Amino acid sequence: MAKLYGVSVGPGAPDLLTLRAVRVIKSCSVIAYPCAEGLDSFAKTIAAAHLRDDHIQIPITMPMVASRFPAAEVYDTATIEIENYIRNGRDVAVLCEGDSMLYGSFMYLLERLRHVEVEIVPGVSSIFAVSASASYPIVSRNETLSVVSGVLDDETLIKNLELADAVAIFKVGRHFMRLKALLEKMGLLKHSIYVERASLDNEIVLPLARADGKAPYFSMILVRKEPIG
Amino acid sequence: MAKLYGVSVGPGAPDLLTLRAVRVIKSCSVIAYPCAEGLDSFAKTIAAAHLRDDHIQIPITMPMVASRFPAAEVYDTATIEIENYIRNGRDVAVLCEGDSMLYGSFMYLLERLRHVEVEIVPGVSSIFAVSASASYPIVSRNETLSVVSGVLDDETLIKNLELADAVAIFKVGRHFMRLKALLEKMGLLKHSIYVERASLDNEIVLPLARADGKAPYFSMILVRKEPIG
Repeated sequence: MAKLYGVSVGPGAPDLLTLRAVRVIKSCSVIAYPCAEGLDSFAKTIAAAHLRDDHIQIPITMPMVASRFPAAEVYDTATIEIENYIRNGRDVAVLCEGDSMLYGSFMYLLERLRHVEVEIVPGVSSIFAVSASASYPIVSRNETLSVVSGVLDDETLIKNLELADAVAIFKVGRHFMRLKALLEKMGLLKHSIYVERASLDNEIVLPLARADGKAPYFSMILVRKEPIG
Repeated sequence: MAKLYGVSVGPGAPDLLTLRAVRVIKSCSVIAYPCAEGLDSFAKTIAAAHLRDDHIQIPITMPMVASRFPAAEVYDTATIEIENYIRNGRDVAVLCEGDSMLYGSFMYLLERLRHVEVEIVPGVSSIFAVSASASYPIVSRNETLSVVSGVLDDETLIKNLELADAVAIFKVGRHFMRLKALLEKMGLLKHSIYVERASLDNEIVLPLARADGKAPYFSMILVRKEPIG
């Protein structure tokens, strides 16, 4: 039997792949990647320079219906296809945006494929691309960081913002105005930065106070309570 | 004037450098790196394959006295040396273990060198190497993650463990026995994994319940409250 690789391809810039990710992609004969129905796969785009015509490709296509996420049957079908290749001696690399184990869809395949040999290639999470693009340190010394989803209700977000020294809010998207208002009410607006499409050519880095709210899915808010000292 | 680069070199395995980190290291004529007094620099070891004889090297040597950390005068001296090279037209890369903005010492140089042009190269944090080595997902969907230091008092750790769905405890080292006892008392031992030297040849991955407590500085505990589903 061959091997399943979960290959984290980083936040978006093609040169933020690791040397290992490149080597694994080149060595696998089958490449799977998530994509939303009707759209290009972001993970595939990031790794495009390393894909060859002789790579067998498996798009794992998610229907664009939020209520069906995570769509179990999509992962069930992909699992069967991937497992067939592995049983036929072909290594399979599943490409994952950012790091595959932080809000990555790879973990749904992992849970279904625990019986095959798996190797996970860690990658650069978008939180570090955001921090780097903004030159904005995350935590130092014994500070604490909360990583949260912007989808959460205000009460949960407030608890995290009260407890942690820094908070990274993923999945901002359509929750932007609510999140900005919440941070303003808590007196944290001046310490918050907003980043869209971190590490990509069209990235936007702004103090949150100056961001306007047309936040795409790939956007993040990074909050610090105090300056680094 | 030339440019200052903060180059994250990842958790330890040399092939977990990004393509960008390799390119920047090769293009800079001066390479600085942190090291503890009397020991090899871990960051330099990780990037060793990309260092050349004609690279000018600046070790930033930390005295082994915890009470003096962060040793301001060490960073002040390094700042002067780095700034001299930059003013003389030489690009300087400061190597940083993991990601430079998550508990990285680079941020102390960054605060002192805000007036020069700076580019930060994000990297693979050890939390992702730990998760990958253990095949242990961190967070999915709208779960929250707390990243904390094991140096913190029990009360602060308990608050984080109560609030978050997953907790990554950095800087375990000599706090291992206290942390293990705390997690046991909270009924979280069975969901905790312990990893030493993640991604290195001599890494150790264990259920926390089976780890014995001779934890080195580069060790981490990763806790999940519930299995991924």
